[in-house]
Amino acid sequence: MAKSTARQPLSIGIDIGGTGTKFGIVDRDGNVLFSDEISTKGHAEVGTFIDELYNALSPLLENAGGVGRMKGIGVGAPNGNFYTGTVEYAPNLPWKGVIPLAKLIESKFKLPVALTNDANAAAIGEMMYGAAKGMKDFIMITLGTGVGSGIVANGKLIYGHDGFAGELGHTIIMPDGRLHKGTGKKGSLESYASATGVTFTAIEMLENSQEPSLLREVPKENLDSKAVYEAAIKGDKLALSIFEFTGKILGLALANAIMFSSPEAIVLFGGLTKAGDLILKPTREHMEANLIQVFQNKVKILVSHLKASDAAILGASALVWDMK
Amino acid sequence: MAKSTARQPLSIGIDIGGTGTKFGIVDRDGNVLFSDEISTKGHAEVGTFIDELYNALSPLLENAGGVGRMKGIGVGAPNGNFYTGTVEYAPNLPWKGVIPLAKLIESKFKLPVALTNDANAAAIGEMMYGAAKGMKDFIMITLGTGVGSGIVANGKLIYGHDGFAGELGHTIIMPDGRLHKGTGKKGSLESYASATGVTFTAIEMLENSQEPSLLREVPKENLDSKAVYEAAIKGDKLALSIFEFTGKILGLALANAIMFSSPEAIVLFGGLTKAGDLILKPTREHMEANLIQVFQNKVKILVSHLKASDAAILGASALVWDMK
Repeated sequence: MAKSTARQPLSIGIDIGGTGTKFGIVDRDGNVLFSDEISTKGHAEVGTFIDELYNALSPLLENAGGVGRMKGIGVGAPNGNFYTGTVEYAPNLPWKGVIPLAKLIESKFKLPVALTNDANAAAIGEMMYGAAKGMKDFIMITLGTGVGSGIVANGKLIYGHDGFAGELGHTIIMPDGRLHKGTGKKGSLESYASATGVTFTAIEMLENSQEPSLLREVPKENLDSKAVYEAAIKGDKLALSIFEFTGKILGLALANAIMFSSPEAIVLFGGLTKAGDLILKPTREHMEANLIQVFQNKVKILVSHLKASDAAILGASALVWDMK
Repeated sequence: MAKSTARQPLSIGIDIGGTGTKFGIVDRDGNVLFSDEISTKGHAEVGTFIDELYNALSPLLENAGGVGRMKGIGVGAPNGNFYTGTVEYAPNLPWKGVIPLAKLIESKFKLPVALTNDANAAAIGEMMYGAAKGMKDFIMITLGTGVGSGIVANGKLIYGHDGFAGELGHTIIMPDGRLHKGTGKKGSLESYASATGVTFTAIEMLENSQEPSLLREVPKENLDSKAVYEAAIKGDKLALSIFEFTGKILGLALANAIMFSSPEAIVLFGGLTKAGDLILKPTREHMEANLIQVFQNKVKILVSHLKASDAAILGASALVWDMK
């Protein structure tokens, strides 16, 4: 198989998240041939980040037949701008202000670079290879360290007039609600329905109730969405109510998004979806409860079935095939 | 002028609102040649509504050169569906369930009919002839008896997978907030930022405070958004705080919409915009306050400058020019 595709051009997909950065080398059929991961968080300076990225990608490039076989690099990054190739004021990245990321990567790798919002990249991946294949109207929502979104309408990704559309995670769901330290805003979706948000909810609920819970035995530094999940599958009531609360907020946000662009489906992706029905059931219930009649019982909630890290890498790499 | 356009085909635009229905005969350049209005509210049955519409339009059609000169009829209606020509479960219309409105009008007038959401129609009108001329990404919001919206992205109206996109008025802005009697949902934008919503806010504020106000002298049956406006321009503090509160909710909703689709502008239209800066100033302030940095200070709030009733009639009529 390696032989028959030897002359096919390949593309590099890079998915920059708040915690880690995943990257892979992808063929036109959506096979991730090689992939790896480095830390994002660990780099206070974007320069050292790009150096490590280069060093980590180099052996993969050699394995894949050398840099000459690469058509280009596609990048998904929080607050990434398709039009300008910059990452601007990303609350979840260590680099502040306006970062000319596409340019920096282009100089280092000597390859053309296309960049967009990480969730937009994931949406393209789902549309080309995943759960949204063939759909013309859907919303992709990534539930990771933060909450990202990519909106597809009329078969096209919505970039907005300035390239920044799709920041559903920052929409305000609970006015005067929980403070988001990265943005300074109160009550945004991301401050509740991200992995970080779930941890905060756990801390709040443990503090505000006397209810016994397995979570009370978890050391504070280990109290995260994974710990909540593990307690919940053991039937821990407080852990279950953490997911119920998270689903209530997420369901409301989904209902609002549906009444806006009326998608055929919402595709969820990211760490929190691993909780399965623990989070999906309350999400679906509260979504339906907040929809006016005309939208009820017709929008699918789908969970990405692409391999954990692949959707975003695939989506980012897909940007390359559209390059002129 | 009438002579030179004598052979030009014309179109009929009909804008059905919760209270009244406006209609006009329009040429390709967007001139509303003849127009009139009937009551919507007064017709419990859609059949008698269509009869009155026919009777009211007939003299206009004669003035315009007869029905033979009409290329077709475009209709904007709440919960109107572009794909099916139906109006479905419209909370603000007297006719419940699924109404095959396009078909009913077609049978009566013997002309082809295209139908969409009233706010979508207004958006098309603004894009072709109004404040959004030349824009590829904008959101139209109609602030009338209810709150409607039309979303344009990548130069195209978003209908969604089922034709119902753009129901921003029903998105929940204040969870567990004010009950919307038409939908049974709590805290929707429409329950605050419509003419009806402003009246409710006035009643609530008068009941919950002892503050002297000109509005206390207004008979309850005359207490509406117009009365609030008239008190506010006289400097009445309570009336001003009603607009401030309305602008707070509307501004939050606009911020959320912006973070979703990142439009170049939001075009406002309808009765409430007549209050000018009384409502626009707090709206703008709260919009900016809720936006994350990347969206701040770049989205224009525009007020439709089309003649009061024209935007929706023009937009509805514009559907006709796209007919095959």
